[in-house]
Amino acid sequence: MFSAIVSANNPRVKHALQLKESRARRREKLFLIDGVREVERAWRSGYEFVEVFWDAGKDVEAECKVNLDASLRNVCHDAERRGKLKEILTLSDSKRTPTIPLASGAFAKIVFGDRNEGVVAVVKSKLTTLDELDSLLEEKCRTSREEPLIGVVEGVEKPGNIGAILRSADGAGLDAIMIAADDYDVYNPNAVRGSLGAIFHVPVVVASSATLLTWLRERRIQRATALCDEAIPYAQLDYRLPTAVVLGSEAEGLTKEWSEETQVDMDNNLLRKIRLPMLGVADSLNVSNAAAILFYEARRVRSY
Amino acid sequence: MFSAIVSANNPRVKHALQLKESRARRREKLFLIDGVREVERAWRSGYEFVEVFWDAGKDVEAECKVNLDASLRNVCHDAERRGKLKEILTLSDSKRTPTIPLASGAFAKIVFGDRNEGVVAVVKSKLTTLDELDSLLEEKCRTSREEPLIGVVEGVEKPGNIGAILRSADGAGLDAIMIAADDYDVYNPNAVRGSLGAIFHVPVVVASSATLLTWLRERRIQRATALCDEAIPYAQLDYRLPTAVVLGSEAEGLTKEWSEETQVDMDNNLLRKIRLPMLGVADSLNVSNAAAILFYEARRVRSY
Repeated sequence: MFSAIVSANNPRVKHALQLKESRARRREKLFLIDGVREVERAWRSGYEFVEVFWDAGKDVEAECKVNLDASLRNVCHDAERRGKLKEILTLSDSKRTPTIPLASGAFAKIVFGDRNEGVVAVVKSKLTTLDELDSLLEEKCRTSREEPLIGVVEGVEKPGNIGAILRSADGAGLDAIMIAADDYDVYNPNAVRGSLGAIFHVPVVVASSATLLTWLRERRIQRATALCDEAIPYAQLDYRLPTAVVLGSEAEGLTKEWSEETQVDMDNNLLRKIRLPMLGVADSLNVSNAAAILFYEARRVRSY
Repeated sequence: MFSAIVSANNPRVKHALQLKESRARRREKLFLIDGVREVERAWRSGYEFVEVFWDAGKDVEAECKVNLDASLRNVCHDAERRGKLKEILTLSDSKRTPTIPLASGAFAKIVFGDRNEGVVAVVKSKLTTLDELDSLLEEKCRTSREEPLIGVVEGVEKPGNIGAILRSADGAGLDAIMIAADDYDVYNPNAVRGSLGAIFHVPVVVASSATLLTWLRERRIQRATALCDEAIPYAQLDYRLPTAVVLGSEAEGLTKEWSEETQVDMDNNLLRKIRLPMLGVADSLNVSNAAAILFYEARRVRSY
């Protein structure tokens, strides 16, 4: 157990604070996880932890050892959460990850938004590569004989939408979410929070559209692409085939790269344009809602 | 055409500013609509307008008449949007609704968030009563012979979620969204924005749980209630029957009032507990995503 830090000017605290910025997250390939449930899930999913800060109360003194149980009793009045907090800190200790008691004032600064659950971890990013996804899919095919089911998102700008999409992908049992972008800050705190920890469970691939399209075409995975023109109703598609559900950004829709058909697509019927009925005045759904409908429709059809 | 207002201290502008607060909206039964498309939809849906402010540029002088075309050309460089803006202002004029040119500085204060489309209207709330809903359903039954399909939301706290739910309800052609609450600020700017104008098209009823449950029971409308215990998979329900999809808040779930069965419910099989499969680590979906899946599943089944 480390000795307490009181000042927000401490270099470790300042470093954690920097990770609130997207640029620092991407440069260092580190991010913050805030909240008991989220930290727990990241541990279980094999994320690599750098350090774990915890709220040790307002009366701790700098450089002093802190009594874990006494401090937690002071800070956390919910017995269940206190138990989980202790579990997390003990687990971190046993894995030789520094667990650092912070005075409440300094701790409040690294917390995200207005929910303070007494724990914030600094963790290494863990995106999935396409090679790793290949292995995962091979393994799945061996055990369940189920064809790949993937979600692809091009240029969704709001992290909260990415969080909700990951949550639906997790619920519907998708193999992965692909984000078509040269660089994307997946671990934005709004995405982590909105995913309810699903971000640590669903493999996330970030790669350029060209790279993803080549990979999908080579594996003959049909692309259920949400478009308006010449599209069939979404429920008419056969989702039991290897499928990637492709969604564009709310503001811009999909780029031509995703909506145009190549010869390989035509020969193998890979570009499948689908549409969700819009019976009212709005011309589209919120992108995370469209994703949820399509992911669960695929799951429903496959469960028969 | 009214003469220009330059100062944000003008009483009309101050009044509009007050409507950014929930309390003022509820007290006065007025709210703000921001954006060309949203204002257009509210006009088309028969909302009653009090006044329409528009951005007349930074150089307008107080009390002076403003040349509409010249000002719009200065302020709005997108020709299509400019045309729509002019249409809206001309329409408002023709309906004897004051259209008030505001200097850009004052206008920027009444705009919501960082999107400024050059028009903000003060409009009267228009919730639907249960009697009005009865008439709408009778009319629908006469023309389409389709059974009622309604969404019920209990205590959803985030206005953005209500906006997205209204958008899905509009897309899936629901008859109404009911919000179970004694009082609810439907016209929060995040809900209006998130609904993409659907809030002006889908009838919204706000009433207590007791009132709504009595109404639903009297009409023998089954309640497809998203619960975990003793629930059937959601896709097994017959959504062609008169149906209300019932959703609880993300944080609290549904209260007992909605999850407990009365004798009437039992006799008529009205309380139908359903669940969405959760195949991963998260134990629930974002409430607007759950709503979207269930609304569209009902629509899919009814389209057969």
